[in-house]
Amino acid sequence: MKGKPIASIVSAGLSRFGKLEGLYAREIFAEAAKEAYERCPNLNPKKDIKALFIGHMGESYEHQGHTGATAADWAGLMNISATRTEAACSSSGAALRAGIFAVLSGLCDVVMVGGVEKMTHRSTPEVTEFLAMASDFPFEQWHGITFPGLFALMATAHMHKYGTTEMQLAHVAVKNHYNGSLNPKAHMQKQITIETALSSRVIAWPLKLYDCSLITDGASCLILTKPELAKKYTDTPVHIIGSGQASDTIGIYEREDFTSLTAAKLAAQQAYKMAGLKPEDIDVAEVHDCFTIAEIIAYEDLGFCKPGEGGHLAENGETALNGKIPVNTSGGLKAKGHPVGATGTAQAYEIYLQLTGQAQKRQVKDAEVGLTHNVGGSGATATVHIYMRC
Amino acid sequence: MKGKPIASIVSAGLSRFGKLEGLYAREIFAEAAKEAYERCPNLNPKKDIKALFIGHMGESYEHQGHTGATAADWAGLMNISATRTEAACSSSGAALRAGIFAVLSGLCDVVMVGGVEKMTHRSTPEVTEFLAMASDFPFEQWHGITFPGLFALMATAHMHKYGTTEMQLAHVAVKNHYNGSLNPKAHMQKQITIETALSSRVIAWPLKLYDCSLITDGASCLILTKPELAKKYTDTPVHIIGSGQASDTIGIYEREDFTSLTAAKLAAQQAYKMAGLKPEDIDVAEVHDCFTIAEIIAYEDLGFCKPGEGGHLAENGETALNGKIPVNTSGGLKAKGHPVGATGTAQAYEIYLQLTGQAQKRQVKDAEVGLTHNVGGSGATATVHIYMRC
Repeated sequence: MKGKPIASIVSAGLSRFGKLEGLYAREIFAEAAKEAYERCPNLNPKKDIKALFIGHMGESYEHQGHTGATAADWAGLMNISATRTEAACSSSGAALRAGIFAVLSGLCDVVMVGGVEKMTHRSTPEVTEFLAMASDFPFEQWHGITFPGLFALMATAHMHKYGTTEMQLAHVAVKNHYNGSLNPKAHMQKQITIETALSSRVIAWPLKLYDCSLITDGASCLILTKPELAKKYTDTPVHIIGSGQASDTIGIYEREDFTSLTAAKLAAQQAYKMAGLKPEDIDVAEVHDCFTIAEIIAYEDLGFCKPGEGGHLAENGETALNGKIPVNTSGGLKAKGHPVGATGTAQAYEIYLQLTGQAQKRQVKDAEVGLTHNVGGSGATATVHIYMRC
Repeated sequence: MKGKPIASIVSAGLSRFGKLEGLYAREIFAEAAKEAYERCPNLNPKKDIKALFIGHMGESYEHQGHTGATAADWAGLMNISATRTEAACSSSGAALRAGIFAVLSGLCDVVMVGGVEKMTHRSTPEVTEFLAMASDFPFEQWHGITFPGLFALMATAHMHKYGTTEMQLAHVAVKNHYNGSLNPKAHMQKQITIETALSSRVIAWPLKLYDCSLITDGASCLILTKPELAKKYTDTPVHIIGSGQASDTIGIYEREDFTSLTAAKLAAQQAYKMAGLKPEDIDVAEVHDCFTIAEIIAYEDLGFCKPGEGGHLAENGETALNGKIPVNTSGGLKAKGHPVGATGTAQAYEIYLQLTGQAQKRQVKDAEVGLTHNVGGSGATATVHIYMRC
């Protein structure tokens, strides 16, 4: 039995993803907001929108915090209640959840949620350092390990326990780059081959260059309202029917198992329960493929397959566009790009397109139910949301 | 007519405020959480608390973001839904508001909100730089102006327009240091004289050392629930009956007037309207005295006096402990200290003590209605909350 809608998406916007030279984060967010407003002529943004929650991971990139107020101003929402949320790479998944609470509270009929990050103007060592702030300072950063290393630990554990192969990791990369080639807003719009992926330089073994997501500039947003008000704004709203969020130890060293993310499993359980659905009911999903191994673990944590079978799912094409359960039709963090604070609501943007039949060359036929899975750090935060076509 | 409660505070905790050497922010937050749990034996934290929103302003201090998950773990709430909020110095005012939404949503019966900051291990230039991230990078920071300078612009404008004096500013400092001397958790627990304040060194004229709040380590938290569940946890809950939040341009240079904060006035209007109350109904208030001029402007923005009369209010003792409307009985940011992310919910902690008769030597007699006013940056964010004794 499907659960009842808790909020509805009446519009969504996404900036270009890529190296956006000469723009501040605020300007990139305005680009996403503009698309959302243009999609929804019945919305009067300044009058209707009562609150903004915006995911933004790192104030160090632009030496700029206080993102809520700035983004509100640049999105034409001067004086609105505006708050930045931060939960590492799940910052805008957390913004979405906070926005759902705001809609359900009865105090805000219409809410904007979104996220933004401007990263490419900084050097790779700087970006690596800023991202590392999402891991544990005393027990991880201080010793020099960074995110490719942390996810490499998960990959080697998964290989050891389940026999997962470098080839299977490469299949995730090839699939997501193929999907990205169909997405005009993706950072990387070129296909790659298994050979390209396998022969790329090692970043942290077994993770090679093509196992890693991109350093990208970008922004995303959604306009949420109460389900009973949705038709006032659009004929084709998308309902949110499940929301889950959970946390875990910030340091991976404290966890019993490196082959699964407890926070993601718990968030998924909450979302499935609220939605009254099971993994097999999901038609299309955007999952947090910050590294290819993370997508394989996501399949398992979300119940798309049994633990240990994620590698086979990728290898057998079951998560490809024409597969049993298409995953990361947008290209994912791998090819669409990973402007960290913007990723959670960018995933929701793709599901919005899929469930309203606007995904063009990458449209999944008859997609009715979608899911997003957004992970922070090495899994200390996870948010999972489930969406239904109206 | 008083509005109906939107949420209830059933417990609250505050760490020591001051220079807490050798502790991480997470440990300081655990100290605040411990007090909140001890005050509320009917609460089973791990079982009852469904979400945490924690204000934390700067990841640079400890090279540590992802504060939600870390704070949840150290507060004994492993696996909970946990999100950091950031709105500069109003980060935990924003956490409180997000927590109220969560309670009202019906999805979380009990929520923890709070804030934390660890600052004193960094040098003053570093702290000044990190705080500056809450101002506008391209049009303020880049040109070298920092927060004392921005508030000095407000002070000189106020002096020019209304004749406010350095002596009046000093009265705010003397009052708040007196109150701090009665607060065993305050960072500075010593009284000062008008002469001490006036003769202290100039930081940014007319603001002198004693016009500025303190760089402090500290944490604060509140346990919120639905009003109808409050008595399950305590015989003496405090109801929240009004909540307001608004934003403004991040840069002060874009504002028409430097003598008032539009965001604070709008947030106050929202909170008063929701509470069905007027400024004269407030018995005790904690306002954002990051600089003495900010407290004077707060009196005016909150309607405790007419525009331009704030200086007289301080000079005449009307906001002293035994005055008409006692303000910053805790000592305020000025003497209790200003661990930036923790300040908003630390203000609510003081109001909780006042309305439950636990404020000891600084107790305001028969206090029934309290207010908190928490400002981010130079006023790009403001949150105002109104509380009522049960």
